[in-house]
Amino acid sequence: MLTVAVCMALLSCLQAQELQGHVTIILLGATGDLAKKYLWQGLFNLYLDESVKGYRFSFNGGALTPTKQGQEHVAKVLESLSCPKDVAPDRCAELKDQFQRLSQYRCVKTSEDYLALSKDIEAQVQHSGVREIGRIFYFSVPPFAYVDIARNINSSCRPGQDTWLRVVLEKPFGHDLLSAQQLATQLGSFFREEEMYRVDHYLGKQVVAQILPFRDQNHRALDGLWNRHHVERVEIVMKETVDVAGRISFYDRYGVIRDILQNHLTEVLTLVAMELPHNISSVESVLQRKLQAFQALRGLQKGSAVLGQYQAYSEQVHRELQKPDSFRSLTPTFAGVLVHMDNLRWEGVPFILMSGKALDERVSYIRVLFKNRAYCSQNEKHWLEGQSHCLPQQIIFNIGYGELGSPAVLVSRTLFRPSLPAESWKEVASRPGLRLFGRPMSDFYAYSPVREQDAYTVLISRIFHHQKDSFVTTQNLLASWAFWSPLLESLANEVPRLYPGGAENGQLLDFEFRDTQLSFSQQPLEQLVPGPGSTPKPSDFQALGAKYRDSPLISAWPEELVAKLASDIEATAVRAVQRSGKFHLALSGGSSPVALFQELATGHYGFPWAHTHLWLADERCVPLWDPESNFQGLQAHLLQHIRVPYYNIHPMPVHLHQRLCAEEDQGTQIYAEEISALVANSSFDLVLLGMGTDGHTASLFPQSPSGLDGEQLVVLTKSPSRPHNRMSFSLPLINRARRVAVLVMGRMKREITTLVSRVGHDPQKWPISGVQPSSGQLVWYMDYEAFLG
Amino acid sequence: MLTVAVCMALLSCLQAQELQGHVTIILLGATGDLAKKYLWQGLFNLYLDESVKGYRFSFNGGALTPTKQGQEHVAKVLESLSCPKDVAPDRCAELKDQFQRLSQYRCVKTSEDYLALSKDIEAQVQHSGVREIGRIFYFSVPPFAYVDIARNINSSCRPGQDTWLRVVLEKPFGHDLLSAQQLATQLGSFFREEEMYRVDHYLGKQVVAQILPFRDQNHRALDGLWNRHHVERVEIVMKETVDVAGRISFYDRYGVIRDILQNHLTEVLTLVAMELPHNISSVESVLQRKLQAFQALRGLQKGSAVLGQYQAYSEQVHRELQKPDSFRSLTPTFAGVLVHMDNLRWEGVPFILMSGKALDERVSYIRVLFKNRAYCSQNEKHWLEGQSHCLPQQIIFNIGYGELGSPAVLVSRTLFRPSLPAESWKEVASRPGLRLFGRPMSDFYAYSPVREQDAYTVLISRIFHHQKDSFVTTQNLLASWAFWSPLLESLANEVPRLYPGGAENGQLLDFEFRDTQLSFSQQPLEQLVPGPGSTPKPSDFQALGAKYRDSPLISAWPEELVAKLASDIEATAVRAVQRSGKFHLALSGGSSPVALFQELATGHYGFPWAHTHLWLADERCVPLWDPESNFQGLQAHLLQHIRVPYYNIHPMPVHLHQRLCAEEDQGTQIYAEEISALVANSSFDLVLLGMGTDGHTASLFPQSPSGLDGEQLVVLTKSPSRPHNRMSFSLPLINRARRVAVLVMGRMKREITTLVSRVGHDPQKWPISGVQPSSGQLVWYMDYEAFLG
Repeated sequence: MLTVAVCMALLSCLQAQELQGHVTIILLGATGDLAKKYLWQGLFNLYLDESVKGYRFSFNGGALTPTKQGQEHVAKVLESLSCPKDVAPDRCAELKDQFQRLSQYRCVKTSEDYLALSKDIEAQVQHSGVREIGRIFYFSVPPFAYVDIARNINSSCRPGQDTWLRVVLEKPFGHDLLSAQQLATQLGSFFREEEMYRVDHYLGKQVVAQILPFRDQNHRALDGLWNRHHVERVEIVMKETVDVAGRISFYDRYGVIRDILQNHLTEVLTLVAMELPHNISSVESVLQRKLQAFQALRGLQKGSAVLGQYQAYSEQVHRELQKPDSFRSLTPTFAGVLVHMDNLRWEGVPFILMSGKALDERVSYIRVLFKNRAYCSQNEKHWLEGQSHCLPQQIIFNIGYGELGSPAVLVSRTLFRPSLPAESWKEVASRPGLRLFGRPMSDFYAYSPVREQDAYTVLISRIFHHQKDSFVTTQNLLASWAFWSPLLESLANEVPRLYPGGAENGQLLDFEFRDTQLSFSQQPLEQLVPGPGSTPKPSDFQALGAKYRDSPLISAWPEELVAKLASDIEATAVRAVQRSGKFHLALSGGSSPVALFQELATGHYGFPWAHTHLWLADERCVPLWDPESNFQGLQAHLLQHIRVPYYNIHPMPVHLHQRLCAEEDQGTQIYAEEISALVANSSFDLVLLGMGTDGHTASLFPQSPSGLDGEQLVVLTKSPSRPHNRMSFSLPLINRARRVAVLVMGRMKREITTLVSRVGHDPQKWPISGVQPSSGQLVWYMDYEAFLG
Repeated sequence: MLTVAVCMALLSCLQAQELQGHVTIILLGATGDLAKKYLWQGLFNLYLDESVKGYRFSFNGGALTPTKQGQEHVAKVLESLSCPKDVAPDRCAELKDQFQRLSQYRCVKTSEDYLALSKDIEAQVQHSGVREIGRIFYFSVPPFAYVDIARNINSSCRPGQDTWLRVVLEKPFGHDLLSAQQLATQLGSFFREEEMYRVDHYLGKQVVAQILPFRDQNHRALDGLWNRHHVERVEIVMKETVDVAGRISFYDRYGVIRDILQNHLTEVLTLVAMELPHNISSVESVLQRKLQAFQALRGLQKGSAVLGQYQAYSEQVHRELQKPDSFRSLTPTFAGVLVHMDNLRWEGVPFILMSGKALDERVSYIRVLFKNRAYCSQNEKHWLEGQSHCLPQQIIFNIGYGELGSPAVLVSRTLFRPSLPAESWKEVASRPGLRLFGRPMSDFYAYSPVREQDAYTVLISRIFHHQKDSFVTTQNLLASWAFWSPLLESLANEVPRLYPGGAENGQLLDFEFRDTQLSFSQQPLEQLVPGPGSTPKPSDFQALGAKYRDSPLISAWPEELVAKLASDIEATAVRAVQRSGKFHLALSGGSSPVALFQELATGHYGFPWAHTHLWLADERCVPLWDPESNFQGLQAHLLQHIRVPYYNIHPMPVHLHQRLCAEEDQGTQIYAEEISALVANSSFDLVLLGMGTDGHTASLFPQSPSGLDGEQLVVLTKSPSRPHNRMSFSLPLINRARRVAVLVMGRMKREITTLVSRVGHDPQKWPISGVQPSSGQLVWYMDYEAFLG
């Protein structure tokens, strides 16, 4: 009985009378684990698929193993190769025999070895009697060997002009952004970008490879759903039950974020989140969209992650790395990370990336959970399973394993019936009693691949067919490292939470998020002693009743201080609006206000933004869109998040007639007029200032020829640091304010704080000493570091 | 055995040697249902509570019922009064006897009757021998009787100067905004605002009255939770099993929205959503905050509601109103409404209001469901009930009935342990097997009142104590009607979905929302025939390949047309950004673009807003913040929802030096310079125009002395309609554009569309005919109504 596959193979044979050319494949690291487990089998599968189409092959294994030993090893591996299920045993033996005859092993170490290899390849090509069309070098070697091998290939094994060269690289591709850049630069000196294929084997997983086609084929149903209005969260998860015993020497230098999140989970994230290109088969469009997705990732902070380490890890480190008992590795074996994307499609949607060793189950999945948009009018007793729109709706890409045990795409029946390519995906029946993600399996439409393929077979075929979108380009690699490196750096000294491993972990590794902060749900055991309910909370701000330069001083830890200042500003705003219908707030630049802006933007729901006018107390003479502009900081950290009417925003006119702070453009007068027209008596409700280490405030610097006295409200000034030209409120304008707040934070300010506490009124020397509102109130906000030192 | 309550009563007696004064209560409608069911009992409870404190009372029942009959009726009601549980039977009989002796009934119809009543009150006061401190008139009468009674009270029954007057009014307080205003004005001519107490008996329900104190007492836990970042949805629900048989003559004129949603559910909504005043016992602050909550409500549209009517209603209408069989009432007995609040706290959080008769259960509740912010690292098999943070977290105010059967406040145990006043609320034990809102009752901390009190008893006591925050002020009433009236108007001819009633309703009344649109989840039965899965979808736009004035014409139904235009603009934007890094888009005013703005704001995630510059093609000479300003429309419908950098927004400078469109301020030159500086060759990537019924476009009107030709890019013009002064792109500037789109919608445009199709180039007469881009592309977008008529 002929199966369809064999029929098709025969048909291909008949069609392929014309020979396509010769391809040489060189597997470096041919005696290694990966080669044994996947790569030789992948090459055999390639041979089976492509030789019937008229391609001729030769396969060269190379490694450091001495020739005889290596040959024996490889021979054993080749003997264990298997054919697809539908190939008869005798036919399989025949095919394996053909493949074995085309495959050989050699020891390659020196540049001479590569020269010899090159000669042999030429001989093989000549022997096959057809034109050479390409060479594939598969690097299944440790990264430190990359550069030498690359140099040898480039100098000794490059094929002729009309023959392509492809080199295949396996992770790790560096350890952080810098090392990845170095490696990329080195490799780039030997190979062109289109010659390099960086493997992330997740991209060869059938379900992962199906994400974009699924989004494309079901775009009518998904167009309205695949966005922040409808998606509640996205979980991208790879859980393992195994630990890393035996691999510590590698693992301990990497940890779970570098090993899993930076590559596999991030690749998956981009496929889920990226804008769908108009044509998903355009490799270039896909790569562009991926890159755009990277650009939209919001930067991670220390608080974006939680880390864990299974308890046995420590002992394994001591044993495998011969470390003393006192040595404690901080390498995480578990991580949960909260990722946000700053674009209109995904803003506010949490992407949860999680992976760990020694967990309770082995499973890898993407789960897109939709917001519940339904109200069910009946008591839940009457709800119908699988039909009620009030039950969770989700799309799950089961990459592998888990309760289901096989790769699958699952869609809640109340969402839509998905369309998948019928030739390669089949609908699978529900298994009674099986629950997946909170619902019985019968709640889902479920599809699995008709024929499961391992990732390497898929990828080797794609290398052969030059499908570069299944690989990691240099740009994408560096974008990914640029995203992860700051987090890795900030976590370098973080002590991971210890967990026992397996089901024993209980709720220990559950985590939750508030805004962008992630934390474990449970307090660690040693902190649990005081009993639940006594969760420590940040202490309330305590007013000191202190004075600084004869004005009230409020001092606290930075976070409390900013919270106090924000709520004082809100209270001032509410009073001003009650009194006059408006609140005129002038802000200055610098780094301290950023935390304040964020505080104001996230809490403070009662803030009367609609009635607030925002002014700048000083500005750098750069265009408003320049990253150095004070306005840009205001826009990024405050304006984007609140709703102040456009016409209540008053940037300083530093940029007029395409010039910056030109005297003749009269920017200072224009701003002064705007102030006089809108702010009663030019008396701001609140002016927020900082203090520089030289005693400057706003952009009034020591020895400034203008702005320290006189009639002018707004002046042009010079700063000792770049950009030198500034526009600033004058001291007389500042001193007209009803309230002035000076925010001083950080150790850097300790000296000037001490100094200024002792000086009198000397604005020429210390402009800040000239801040003395004539009838208003001055309040100092200093954190303990600036004040107590 | 003396109970605590009796002890306290005795104690009060002893303390109350000093008499507080005499209060007269006049219950109008004393023989009605409400009086029988609640009001006499409420008055008796008031007497029990307050007479021990030294107050003296007299109670006068009045109605249209003839005196003798009425007296008998009232005597019967008084006989059926009950004492609190802890009062011994003989003591109770004694108290009832006292109360009966203080109570009397009379027939009141004419002004003479009221004069007589007034005399009697004076006599009663004199008889009691203490100073009169107040009079309460309780209107338990149909609303048509209000004004007459009010006039009589005002003219005949007002007490002396040092004695307060309180009149208590029962809903309905009008039928829509206009009638409510009329009634309020009429009542306002007789009573001062502080004299009027409009009852919404929901405000007397113990759980409802606890909302603000709960929010206040638990503010530490709630501060971070009670906002859009944490609340997924709020459901405010009143379900009834009864129908309205016997009350049709009233009900059919009102329906469920006027009967339940406009008052009860809206009052509850404001208590949940309002900003918490600093001091919740400040009546004035509470009322202010409530009013602010009303102001933040986003306007409702027809699509904000779904309506139903139970099937037996029709027959009840025929019977009770003596209508012919052909008569079909459209009065809804079921409504679901989606409410949004436009403020920083609640933006995007759906508030679902739902009420109906003949449903499957009787229950009334508020449910605040929180977003799931946790990720549980273990397979759900290992989750612990009541402890896992991945299970739903919610706060429920069970106003009454339901599975629980009693008023209660429930808080998920994983949220926090709430604090409630221990003297009046007690923790209640979990009932095994009882599930509430998807979770076993054991998942919640549950609190119920120590002593259940009916709403009228609570409210009568609050009237007595002048606690006006438990009543509906005129301002709040009108704010509520202003919110509901437009919806009621737009739904006037809407045919409600019929439902069988009770559990039979199945999923028929389930509804769901997309953006602000609500719709039933199930297609109506008659449409189900084609089988599920074949849900009809709006047809894709079909290009007609048509021409209008020799340029491409795109024509469709309004919704499709706007969608098509939006996606054309996006495609143009993407191309422009690819080409030049920027997209210069000029928009004009009018009502048609609003739908376009909304379409662009909600979908179109790939729109390159960060690189888009927005310009105005014309503007009215009003300040930017004027509601008439074109810019204001752009801000409200587009800018608020997207992220265009501040400096990419280019409003027309119609307002300079505090003047509007003054020639000498050179606004047109300033704008022209800005265009020349930023837009290459002053050639916009896209100019979007409309067409007026007089053939004007942008603000270029027929016979305009400027702007139709010449060198000027931007001109001042005059409009025949107010505001007359305008600023506008000139035709030469428009015709430099790479692409011009003219959007024409609505039947009003039919004539001009036909006319303009026939005229040649005659901009003096029809400025639109002068739109002929010199090298760009002109495209017409017309809906079928404008084009086909």
